[in-house]
Amino acid sequence: MPATPAWPPQSTPRLFVEAPLHAGAAIPLDGAPAHYLLSVMRLKEGDPVKLFDGMSGEWLGIARAVRKRDLVLEVTEKLREREAVPDLWLCAAPIKKGRIDWVAEKACELGVARLVPVLTRRTVVDRVKDERLRAHMIEAAEQCGRTAVPELGETLTLDAMLARWPTGRALFFADETGGAPALDAMRARAGPAAILIGPEGGFDDAERAAIRALPQAIGISLGPRILRADTAAAATVALWMAAAGDW
Amino acid sequence: MPATPAWPPQSTPRLFVEAPLHAGAAIPLDGAPAHYLLSVMRLKEGDPVKLFDGMSGEWLGIARAVRKRDLVLEVTEKLREREAVPDLWLCAAPIKKGRIDWVAEKACELGVARLVPVLTRRTVVDRVKDERLRAHMIEAAEQCGRTAVPELGETLTLDAMLARWPTGRALFFADETGGAPALDAMRARAGPAAILIGPEGGFDDAERAAIRALPQAIGISLGPRILRADTAAAATVALWMAAAGDW
Repeated sequence: MPATPAWPPQSTPRLFVEAPLHAGAAIPLDGAPAHYLLSVMRLKEGDPVKLFDGMSGEWLGIARAVRKRDLVLEVTEKLREREAVPDLWLCAAPIKKGRIDWVAEKACELGVARLVPVLTRRTVVDRVKDERLRAHMIEAAEQCGRTAVPELGETLTLDAMLARWPTGRALFFADETGGAPALDAMRARAGPAAILIGPEGGFDDAERAAIRALPQAIGISLGPRILRADTAAAATVALWMAAAGDW
Repeated sequence: MPATPAWPPQSTPRLFVEAPLHAGAAIPLDGAPAHYLLSVMRLKEGDPVKLFDGMSGEWLGIARAVRKRDLVLEVTEKLREREAVPDLWLCAAPIKKGRIDWVAEKACELGVARLVPVLTRRTVVDRVKDERLRAHMIEAAEQCGRTAVPELGETLTLDAMLARWPTGRALFFADETGGAPALDAMRARAGPAAILIGPEGGFDDAERAAIRALPQAIGISLGPRILRADTAAAATVALWMAAAGDW
């Protein structure tokens, strides 16, 4: 028996859509997503597209009514159920453009459930561009095969975040003044968790004391080198995923 | 007793120099490093600078003969011995600019001993700019407090690399078709190691077979999501460091 060619093929474009998906739905597209499918990916009438809405898994769409700048995707069948999302939040102080965009991308790829921008005293970036962070996470989800896009939490000050911290959620924070080896600490504390990453200048003493005063806080060490904020975010999320057995 | 202020202070600039360092050496600086110290960091006569040459640890330098565009650093005393470098190589297929620069930066920050560019069949970047990669690693070493800069290995084809692979060095590679959980595999195999990361399109079947045929090769799994090459590099290096107990 000859091998059946994979359908849809591996090269099938993958697209996030805001509209809820179901069999029989017709998704009209114009603007940037249509440009991507028609001009970049050269989609033709009848070609497949993988679609996900972040909620209902991954669906097969077929290109219909293809014109120069718009088309309709006819949703035919479900390809995959929505992924199980490991219960990890990344709470990160905004850092300069480029680096924060990269943190949002990596947070999505590595599998976090939620990204929360946190304002600290040494945060030099005064405004978080929610739209841009969300766009980076959507693009990363399209690329990496996720069927869920991380939630983008409301931007909070560190004090406000600590004041309303959920009882059952561990808060791992990189403690430059000491702390347990990250992997051991993460293995010792299963369940819902969050990782808190400070800005380029780190936390100040008062902030570190406030974090430590939270019963759910666990100081971790990230080794002998001083990691930049973006590196620390990616490294700790990777360790948590591996410790949680998601990998 | 009042606390003695830290000397040199935490904000002291840190600089890599090519010349070997020793007490009493006089390091003349002009061009970009002098601009950085004088115009960006506002260094004045008598101010401290931390210096490292990648070989002999970290030294204290004092600004002398400060002029508009040049100065001399007088090396006075050794501040730290050279770090112990974990014996990990990162062998990475070149990917597009920006992303490969980022891989070089993260490899340095996370502590690798050596970065080796590897050309594979699906590598679309045809030339590796050694100078640029090395500059990114030096800048990262200056930032993250390393006293050693990762060696930049000669760019090799995958076949050439496999043909001369050292007997005692494990080669972990992300195997999209399966493999042991990364952390377990790394914990089970201590000692000299390398991580091999393919290009955006991954390895082709023949390449994967050639890698697997190497007795030192160990396929690892990086979880259910498809990681971009740069993410896979940072995540696996972080895991190896944690598994090796460097963190």
